[in-house]
Amino acid sequence: MTWTVAILASAAYVDTPSRRAHPSTCTNAMLDITATYTDQYQITMSQVYFHKGLQDETAVFDYFFRDLPFGGGYALFAGLEDVLDAVAHLRFDEKDLALLKKEGMNDAFLEYLENFRFTGTIRAAREGDLMFPDRPVLSVESSIIEAQLLETLLLNTLNYQSLIATKASRMWLAAEGRNLIDFGLRRAPGLGGYAASRAAIIGGFVGTSNVRAGRDYGIPISGTMAHSFIQRFDDELAAFRAFADVRPHDCVLLVDTYDTLESGVPNAITVGKEMKARGEQLKGIRLDSGDLAWLAKEARAMLDEAGLEDVKIAASNQLDERVIKSLLDQKAPIDLFGVGTSLVTGRPDAALDGVYKLAFANNEPRLKISENIEKVNLPGRKQVYRLVREDGSFYGGEVVTLADEQAVDTMYHPTDEGKGLDTSLYRLEPLLETVMEEGKRTAAPRTVHEIAEFAQEQLNALPDEFKRFENPHLYKIGLSAKLRELRDTLLAERREA
Amino acid sequence: MTWTVAILASAAYVDTPSRRAHPSTCTNAMLDITATYTDQYQITMSQVYFHKGLQDETAVFDYFFRDLPFGGGYALFAGLEDVLDAVAHLRFDEKDLALLKKEGMNDAFLEYLENFRFTGTIRAAREGDLMFPDRPVLSVESSIIEAQLLETLLLNTLNYQSLIATKASRMWLAAEGRNLIDFGLRRAPGLGGYAASRAAIIGGFVGTSNVRAGRDYGIPISGTMAHSFIQRFDDELAAFRAFADVRPHDCVLLVDTYDTLESGVPNAITVGKEMKARGEQLKGIRLDSGDLAWLAKEARAMLDEAGLEDVKIAASNQLDERVIKSLLDQKAPIDLFGVGTSLVTGRPDAALDGVYKLAFANNEPRLKISENIEKVNLPGRKQVYRLVREDGSFYGGEVVTLADEQAVDTMYHPTDEGKGLDTSLYRLEPLLETVMEEGKRTAAPRTVHEIAEFAQEQLNALPDEFKRFENPHLYKIGLSAKLRELRDTLLAERREA
Repeated sequence: MTWTVAILASAAYVDTPSRRAHPSTCTNAMLDITATYTDQYQITMSQVYFHKGLQDETAVFDYFFRDLPFGGGYALFAGLEDVLDAVAHLRFDEKDLALLKKEGMNDAFLEYLENFRFTGTIRAAREGDLMFPDRPVLSVESSIIEAQLLETLLLNTLNYQSLIATKASRMWLAAEGRNLIDFGLRRAPGLGGYAASRAAIIGGFVGTSNVRAGRDYGIPISGTMAHSFIQRFDDELAAFRAFADVRPHDCVLLVDTYDTLESGVPNAITVGKEMKARGEQLKGIRLDSGDLAWLAKEARAMLDEAGLEDVKIAASNQLDERVIKSLLDQKAPIDLFGVGTSLVTGRPDAALDGVYKLAFANNEPRLKISENIEKVNLPGRKQVYRLVREDGSFYGGEVVTLADEQAVDTMYHPTDEGKGLDTSLYRLEPLLETVMEEGKRTAAPRTVHEIAEFAQEQLNALPDEFKRFENPHLYKIGLSAKLRELRDTLLAERREA
Repeated sequence: MTWTVAILASAAYVDTPSRRAHPSTCTNAMLDITATYTDQYQITMSQVYFHKGLQDETAVFDYFFRDLPFGGGYALFAGLEDVLDAVAHLRFDEKDLALLKKEGMNDAFLEYLENFRFTGTIRAAREGDLMFPDRPVLSVESSIIEAQLLETLLLNTLNYQSLIATKASRMWLAAEGRNLIDFGLRRAPGLGGYAASRAAIIGGFVGTSNVRAGRDYGIPISGTMAHSFIQRFDDELAAFRAFADVRPHDCVLLVDTYDTLESGVPNAITVGKEMKARGEQLKGIRLDSGDLAWLAKEARAMLDEAGLEDVKIAASNQLDERVIKSLLDQKAPIDLFGVGTSLVTGRPDAALDGVYKLAFANNEPRLKISENIEKVNLPGRKQVYRLVREDGSFYGGEVVTLADEQAVDTMYHPTDEGKGLDTSLYRLEPLLETVMEEGKRTAAPRTVHEIAEFAQEQLNALPDEFKRFENPHLYKIGLSAKLRELRDTLLAERREA
């Protein structure tokens, strides 16, 4: 039996009148994001490009990251739909322009900013896909100013949502089919909590306590009761009865306010039996303190003994993927996990180190040199291919090529010249697709549930050795011969200069 | 002993025209926060209270936290102005009500929610004040439903902003007068980055790269240039000259794209001299990689040698309070630090464990019992007094009393019955003041700079032993005899029950 949560109709993407009425704001969110949601230097660099007559010059920037979070073997890509929605509506509004005037920008540049729209192309991996270090996840091709003015919004959104979706997916792996609910809003990093609830669903959670995120993203909302509710009443049984009376269809009783096994579970059993006698069903109990493994076993036995086999057990209190795994290793009969702080903060990492690097400008591929060749970025317009086995499972590697290459039969180690891998044994699946052209989306948005389903398919196709928590296997990122040659030529030129 | 009484302003804060025009939204932020920005159980518990006829019953909830973040000796209270602004405008809008109807709420309760306004009282510490574990920082007194419906918004805002302001203040202590700038937006937890920039100022930062936060909160904005800007040009010198040409009044050159000492600093010196010859002033250079201490010393010597003593040195790249302290211990001649990830994520803690606990309901003080007496909350309406020495410095302790107590000359250890402290040697400064009455603010909002100034005064009055990073001294939180007696009586009653 599955734990049922209220399922809301998936929000189809329809331009509501309010979207059309406010074309200058990002409207799927509760935010009025304007183009000043950025770092100041994006605007000052744009000012220089503008006054140097470079405003129409084409540039390509790649979004990628360098280190897998949580010591894991993969990451999930999340936040794309929010980015595309924001980019399509990105404008400098009157207050933005007034501020920039005060900051000394001249009228010609202010007029440019007033008319600013993103009119370029975005190519991206599909949201919910696996992503790995040091290869493009998303590419922006546009005028250099437009590309610059997207950078911070894009990093801010993708870095955080990808981190949280990845964290959530680790809990999804650990929970092995049990349900996970996001309880994180109160400990979330301020308004970050809004998108955290979305990212949690992408990573495999089935619901959230966050009502507003549920409303806007079409996510099932869920919750139980607080200790304060029990305290309000003179005794625990009276509190339980009041709740069951008003919400008989959705009654999960919090049993640890006084004493879980001496008071909470027995009172829940009393109410469960009363509900049963009325033809209703007590949905569950929630454990929120103490030794959850032991308490779950004891509570399960007591509930079963009382003929309440259908009453589920939910657990919360400082959970993360390792605690969940440990509880299930101990065979704790827990049906649902409520996770807060560790989910929405992405502890212990707390940030994904995604960057946005120039790959093409002034009609030429570009790279940033570094003393460390592993930190040299990949120049030019690129594509990424995943190596897929005949049975649909992933080999565990991807090859980065130039965008216009037709076929690649060998992928080379990015830095160890002698190492190559024959890719002809695998199907090469291209990962970057055009999602925005001339500033317009090229496909209908996907719902968060479609994205979550896709993420789970990808995770299922990824071999276990990349998913284990301890010392996961290293996924290979290789280069085509042409891309490697381009990089090495540019590097040599630059070092000679 | 001096007994200071808080003087409360009685004039309600006057709504501006723009506020009146959009009564249902929080207007200082970029957000349209509605009352569904909450956990689902706040609404379902309210539904039960409503149907049980308890909607008008008075309740008191306290906001407090249990553990000081970062292993430090204090925390800073931040986020209050944002909370009060949001609370004053908190409504269920049409979309909220439509969702809740679909969730099965009946018409009578929906009508109640449609008319929901916060009409209660909030008493709080002054924003920017020091705060310590296990004593109230803020108290809400209102109908139980109203208090419940504020909880998540309040925790979400105060927990995050207080965490970030505390982190920022540790860097402010370490920087010993050098300037700190927030560069965190790209690595911030999504929209959390908006308020993070505000909290950074409260903690002692002087500016932010976050233009939108600068616009809305009146924070100075700041920035330099990215590596991509240098890469766009054929050589570094051309890039530097272009920037100096367009932004001569605000020119900070990023010197590590190719080689800091071989290329970046010499090119910056060339441009600095050219600017000087034109009567302009190169403001600074920025180091963003490598050994910052060593590079700063070398760069300083080269700049001075070239007669550019006025050119400042800024440093960035994975800084936090310990790295800043280490750099200054090495006497690195750095004038300004740009801090990103560790600031806006509040690493390694990533969350403050603030909670909101019921202290009064059903006409009686309430407490939540726990096996561990240190986790038993303090019942009833309370006040907190700080022990201040004659010279204005803080003794390092506070006493929590019942709100209506007139005088306290001893504070007792919360759990060790034998321990008491004579408080008559100190001035007792009351910390909680009424900031909202009948749902209206009782005083004009404070700017973020006023709050920052207050925070620095408080930090300056706190003895050094509470501010050191390693094993700081423990600040004492004591109880009045009456409060301790009330708690112990209720606890005994509850345990007998």
